[in-house]
Amino acid sequence: MSDPLVIAVDSSTSATKAVVVDKSGQVLSTGKADIDLLTPGMDMYEHDPVQWWESTETAISQACAALSDADRQRIKALCITHQRESFALVDEDGGALRPAILWLDSRAGDEIKEHGSDHIHELSGKPADTTPALYKIAWLKKHEPEVLTSAHKLVDVHAYLAHHLVGRWVSAVGSADTLNLLDIANVDYSDELLDIAGVTREQMAELAPSASIIDTIKKELTDSWGIPGDVVLVAGVGDGQAAGLGTSAIDEDVAYVNIGTSVVAGVHAFEYAYSPAYRTLLGGIPDSYVLEIVQNSGSVLANWFRKELGDPALDGGLDPELDAAAEALEPGTDGLLTVPYWNAVQSPHWDPFAKGIVLGFGSAHTRAHMYRSIIEGMAIELRGNLERVQESTGRKLRELRCTGGGSRNPLYRRIFADATGLPLVVSGVDEVSAQGAAMMAMAAIGAYPDVQSASEGMASFVDRTDPDPEAHEIYGEWAAIQQDIYPALADIFTRINSVTKRK
Amino acid sequence: MSDPLVIAVDSSTSATKAVVVDKSGQVLSTGKADIDLLTPGMDMYEHDPVQWWESTETAISQACAALSDADRQRIKALCITHQRESFALVDEDGGALRPAILWLDSRAGDEIKEHGSDHIHELSGKPADTTPALYKIAWLKKHEPEVLTSAHKLVDVHAYLAHHLVGRWVSAVGSADTLNLLDIANVDYSDELLDIAGVTREQMAELAPSASIIDTIKKELTDSWGIPGDVVLVAGVGDGQAAGLGTSAIDEDVAYVNIGTSVVAGVHAFEYAYSPAYRTLLGGIPDSYVLEIVQNSGSVLANWFRKELGDPALDGGLDPELDAAAEALEPGTDGLLTVPYWNAVQSPHWDPFAKGIVLGFGSAHTRAHMYRSIIEGMAIELRGNLERVQESTGRKLRELRCTGGGSRNPLYRRIFADATGLPLVVSGVDEVSAQGAAMMAMAAIGAYPDVQSASEGMASFVDRTDPDPEAHEIYGEWAAIQQDIYPALADIFTRINSVTKRK
Repeated sequence: MSDPLVIAVDSSTSATKAVVVDKSGQVLSTGKADIDLLTPGMDMYEHDPVQWWESTETAISQACAALSDADRQRIKALCITHQRESFALVDEDGGALRPAILWLDSRAGDEIKEHGSDHIHELSGKPADTTPALYKIAWLKKHEPEVLTSAHKLVDVHAYLAHHLVGRWVSAVGSADTLNLLDIANVDYSDELLDIAGVTREQMAELAPSASIIDTIKKELTDSWGIPGDVVLVAGVGDGQAAGLGTSAIDEDVAYVNIGTSVVAGVHAFEYAYSPAYRTLLGGIPDSYVLEIVQNSGSVLANWFRKELGDPALDGGLDPELDAAAEALEPGTDGLLTVPYWNAVQSPHWDPFAKGIVLGFGSAHTRAHMYRSIIEGMAIELRGNLERVQESTGRKLRELRCTGGGSRNPLYRRIFADATGLPLVVSGVDEVSAQGAAMMAMAAIGAYPDVQSASEGMASFVDRTDPDPEAHEIYGEWAAIQQDIYPALADIFTRINSVTKRK
Repeated sequence: MSDPLVIAVDSSTSATKAVVVDKSGQVLSTGKADIDLLTPGMDMYEHDPVQWWESTETAISQACAALSDADRQRIKALCITHQRESFALVDEDGGALRPAILWLDSRAGDEIKEHGSDHIHELSGKPADTTPALYKIAWLKKHEPEVLTSAHKLVDVHAYLAHHLVGRWVSAVGSADTLNLLDIANVDYSDELLDIAGVTREQMAELAPSASIIDTIKKELTDSWGIPGDVVLVAGVGDGQAAGLGTSAIDEDVAYVNIGTSVVAGVHAFEYAYSPAYRTLLGGIPDSYVLEIVQNSGSVLANWFRKELGDPALDGGLDPELDAAAEALEPGTDGLLTVPYWNAVQSPHWDPFAKGIVLGFGSAHTRAHMYRSIIEGMAIELRGNLERVQESTGRKLRELRCTGGGSRNPLYRRIFADATGLPLVVSGVDEVSAQGAAMMAMAAIGAYPDVQSASEGMASFVDRTDPDPEAHEIYGEWAAIQQDIYPALADIFTRINSVTKRK
């Protein structure tokens, strides 16, 4: 075990990826298999959980097949990271009783209104919102009660895959936590939350501490992957928390930021805290929390803009001229401000009815102004949310570790660094969540003394953007105005929602 | 004088047009000459008033030259309509002491703040705003006091041209009124307003009643135009009020709407009234008022959208595909609402700091949604302003007489008719303001018993769009929301203005 390899599995909403990683963090081989998104109705998003396993099996097989015999012999552990908050209902044999309901499914609006409360936020760390499973399980209790009561287990992706791998229904604490059924400070299921959901403690998976060894993976599986020795399953964590590890944002004053479809940022904490600015999750470092800012409108907005309001000849593709024109503008885009709530708002308002706002339009504004304003809007929102995190923890942040598509774009880097006032260090790893799981696996098998050391040893960085203090000050003036726009209009969005709903 | 012709002069911000019109309203010939816009500084717009006369002389000469000798003999009167609120300062010989300051000049922000009041609104009929001359004259009092005190006369376009035509400084009441120096209910200069402006009653032009004969035009001029007989100058009116006549919106329950660069709508009234929804002007019908709604962001917004956010290959030109896609959408554009204050807001908020707002953005919105939403925004604003006019007068409107570029577009016609709930009858006349002046001239020389009869006899219409009651009801739901958006954000715009000003 002098130079072990580990398999990291990242099972996301669209596909499962498997990577084989060495102790330095280098990726030796990869595999991938898609998962079909099912949309049985308005606001409903489901998976056939069998595909969670089949895609995992295929991805691992591909990754192992691409290795030499010698390298396959070096594989000692496997760790799972995955889409969070999604859940399946299974019988004793592991057969699905209905399709799995996903994090982005928003059928449970009424249940959020009925059960959501500050008390549940404090208890679970999670503000009432569409993503946690709690409200969707309560929806099942009302609409499909037999399925719920007859289920042998209600499981997240981790527990579902663990059952296939080791024959036990076992989840990691940082995986099961995303269902919103835990008393998070006590790291155990909450009877109160189980009761709201309408499930029993017996129906839930075992909880394994982060980065602990769960069991040895079934021999027939490792055989089929061509791995001669034992491979242990290491308790993983949800993909967001794993990204924090993957970018080595492990100190309490360093945040990770994924500028992807969404903008998700987080910081580790070793004491429980909760605030409307973030949701609190159990982290991949044992006994840690992750304070996670969620802004569901990230680069998806810039993509939307290029597709719907860009040059039709480019069909929504990248537009370097537009980027250059946007980069040439001043912070604040001559008074054009964007509140980027196209896909509702999570941090810090958690309003499913909120929508996007662009205001300050004058006839001197151009396409590039609106494009830049949208990107500035995301960055200014992040600035405000990071400030609220710092107020909540009492700790100043010193650096952002950045990943996702936006981190590869100099326009985004400049705007995000200047708006937040923090240096932006870009991760050199492509699959940061998988990398985070690989770090947990390496720590679990003793290749590193702990997860933190593994994270430091296996991370890499490619770019650093320092903020311009003058630009940061200008953004501050705009941010002060911007943060007052949505609160003045919250009632308008409720009314818009009620009219559109009637149509 | 059995079949007379009249010359109507429309001296606008960009050019002076002259048309020769017969008793049926038919245009026999036209002439046109441009005027150079001077922009000596930020927010400053000026003309050399000599060009007012030179362009008028050229346009009349052209129009007359295009006629047969026989037709030239039929010309009996000339009437002027013109850009409003613009003024020149002249010496005794008529020489300009400085460039004329135009209606769109917005240098007098401080003076508006200092002097604007409800009292002045009630006295003059005009809410404090950038367009009236009053505040710009007060600006001169502060910044160029010698010019103001040494001026022989301070004149509007009508008086300036009348001096050239008949040798007297004489304006029409509905022309001078736009300077905002009249006690409008008494149809006379107000000492209080003259005092604020810093000018004396002696410096002002004589006031001639609407459609009264002022004098005979100088023989050397009519000779030079090839007109053998006498031609009288008839007291005209500002171009907005003239448009009401030109579209024959002369009853108190019929409004005219110019969907041009701006959206301007008005209705005649025979009792004085004032309200934030409109400004009150003296009309072209003797002893009438015009209650005028001003929305400074009209088709200029749709043009802006096509240029800045449309297909670059079309370079801002018309886009029939975009129109068709916009027409296919439902009223309310799936919850996307536009408050069209790109060029500030006049009716009903009169806030020079207001800017455009688009809100309700979701990822399903397309280019056509935003385009339609902008047009709907103008129409919904007009609906609200027309409702306020009706509340103020206590009279229901029954029809809109429509002119301007937007009236030629079926998409605009459909949206405006449905949003306002009123039939939209499109004027068949190209130059409605000039037509209004021609009507006044015909009435003055007795070709019709009064201006109203002339207006009925000389107007023509080409299209009628009836509102769809169901669509009107849907617009009502959106309008109720839309009217609450700006008031919630007024403070935000003041703050945006103060930040952009500092840059």
